[in-house]
Amino acid sequence: MTHPQPDPGPVLLIHGGAGAIQKGDASPEREAAIRADLRRALAAGWEILDRGGPSLDAVEAAVRVMEDSPFFNAGHGAALTSEGTIEHDSSIMDGRNRAAGAVSCTTRIRNPVSAARAVMERTPHVMLTAAGAEQFAREQGLPIVAPWYFFTPERQAALERVQAAKKAKAAASEKDSHGTVGAVARDKAGHLAAATSTGGYADKMVGRVGDSPIIGAGTYANDATVAFSGTGQGEIFIRCVIGHRISCLMELKGMTLEAASAQALEELGAMGGTGGFIAVGADGSAILPHNTPGMYRGIARGGRMAVAIFGDDRLDA
Amino acid sequence: MTHPQPDPGPVLLIHGGAGAIQKGDASPEREAAIRADLRRALAAGWEILDRGGPSLDAVEAAVRVMEDSPFFNAGHGAALTSEGTIEHDSSIMDGRNRAAGAVSCTTRIRNPVSAARAVMERTPHVMLTAAGAEQFAREQGLPIVAPWYFFTPERQAALERVQAAKKAKAAASEKDSHGTVGAVARDKAGHLAAATSTGGYADKMVGRVGDSPIIGAGTYANDATVAFSGTGQGEIFIRCVIGHRISCLMELKGMTLEAASAQALEELGAMGGTGGFIAVGADGSAILPHNTPGMYRGIARGGRMAVAIFGDDRLDA
Repeated sequence: MTHPQPDPGPVLLIHGGAGAIQKGDASPEREAAIRADLRRALAAGWEILDRGGPSLDAVEAAVRVMEDSPFFNAGHGAALTSEGTIEHDSSIMDGRNRAAGAVSCTTRIRNPVSAARAVMERTPHVMLTAAGAEQFAREQGLPIVAPWYFFTPERQAALERVQAAKKAKAAASEKDSHGTVGAVARDKAGHLAAATSTGGYADKMVGRVGDSPIIGAGTYANDATVAFSGTGQGEIFIRCVIGHRISCLMELKGMTLEAASAQALEELGAMGGTGGFIAVGADGSAILPHNTPGMYRGIARGGRMAVAIFGDDRLDA
Repeated sequence: MTHPQPDPGPVLLIHGGAGAIQKGDASPEREAAIRADLRRALAAGWEILDRGGPSLDAVEAAVRVMEDSPFFNAGHGAALTSEGTIEHDSSIMDGRNRAAGAVSCTTRIRNPVSAARAVMERTPHVMLTAAGAEQFAREQGLPIVAPWYFFTPERQAALERVQAAKKAKAAASEKDSHGTVGAVARDKAGHLAAATSTGGYADKMVGRVGDSPIIGAGTYANDATVAFSGTGQGEIFIRCVIGHRISCLMELKGMTLEAASAQALEELGAMGGTGGFIAVGADGSAILPHNTPGMYRGIARGGRMAVAIFGDDRLDA
């Protein structure tokens, strides 16, 4: 939790997924590369906020970097379905007017978050799914790629581990199962925005839509309260409507972001949900809680950037 | 608004869509047939509640009758997309544990609400979309029909009117544009449930997903507060997260269902949204508000059934 200053200025938070992430899971080289990509995502969004640009642009830019990175479960490097295919979900929300856009179950759109933004800005709709979403993205001239562009051997290996564990009736390691990327920001004008993008999780059913493209669940932004992006067991996030829940706790109960976030995470846990989220309040307060051992995460504020992975990593900015 | 008694007993509410429904739009014969199908939907759900069955069964049964009827925009008789196809969305939620299921953009599942329930009960997921949802429904043995089973000449004519008006840059008549069916119930044990099903609206983009399958927006149920099903401009319902909003207003502000519903409908209107909803509170209170000229609706309570269409229709039960 970072506390707001009298003039909090812009702030950007990102996450790259929460789960049973342990020290030593990745080689030092791979861990360094992951941290470098988190910093690149922060830098892409911060550059926009720092020159007075809108939070909406900043969250889209940060999420695009993580979609393009092979290390995060979104865009290139997304998790594989039970049939070995890749299906993306994404959404974005503008706190100024609560405009929102989302795509679900897309297989060929290179940057789903930008397709979500195009749905918001260039259609009367909030969500497009599957073939219709792809047809729209093509018509809008968004980059379309062959499905194998998204494929990584690491996700194939993860699917094989999960399916082998299932066959052996063992519990799959959580680090093979979840992950999502997201960004929330407050810009110099005080406007909030949030964006989330994911491949879902390894061995999900074909056609499964998680919380990431669901407004109120995986993504929510309202200038009066909070911008939120979640990662974890999406089905529980949906049933808790957790993003909108935090907003209502702040607005209707007068809770701080910290108190509302703690209560919402507790409610999530009481329903058996694990995961985490990032959230920035209207007053510039920022929080990155998770009830998992680790969460890829980062913050940029006042020209300083910090990233963290494990639960005990310090993250000050 | 009907006020709860000390022992409110079971109650079932249904809607068949809200919009610019005017007296004389339909022939007396057609209007009588619509009212008869609303009563059949009420009877199907009431029969279950009356013998002590669960609210979840009652809302599914009521929605199935309206999906099978040609008069409502769900299942058979659904609205057509801009390309003349039919794509269904549906969801269901169990207030006991906030379990939920949904399908979006299905084209061959005869009763989408039953597919939504199967997603809830027989998968680890909340939502399946498009081809994946249909594959699942087939595997579960749910009835699959040819796409033209859903087609009605009335919806074809409506699409042609909307597209002609668009070409002439005139505003389409709202009665050609919207509609959804839904049911909410409280059973003898005091458990709440909600279900919603729709074809979206005439001339929607291919792949558009509205609020009907979105938990928190078009459908919400929580034994502690309210069961909700909405109909109207789905994109605004999503941005308002209106079902969950009413629940939060009741829980966090101690509002009655009536007060919370009035505030939520006002907030919807302030964002330019039109429509209506049905909601039953944990205490058995029941409400069927709409800010449109009419809404197909009905209530069953204490063995009495009442249905209404126009704004000034009396509805007592």
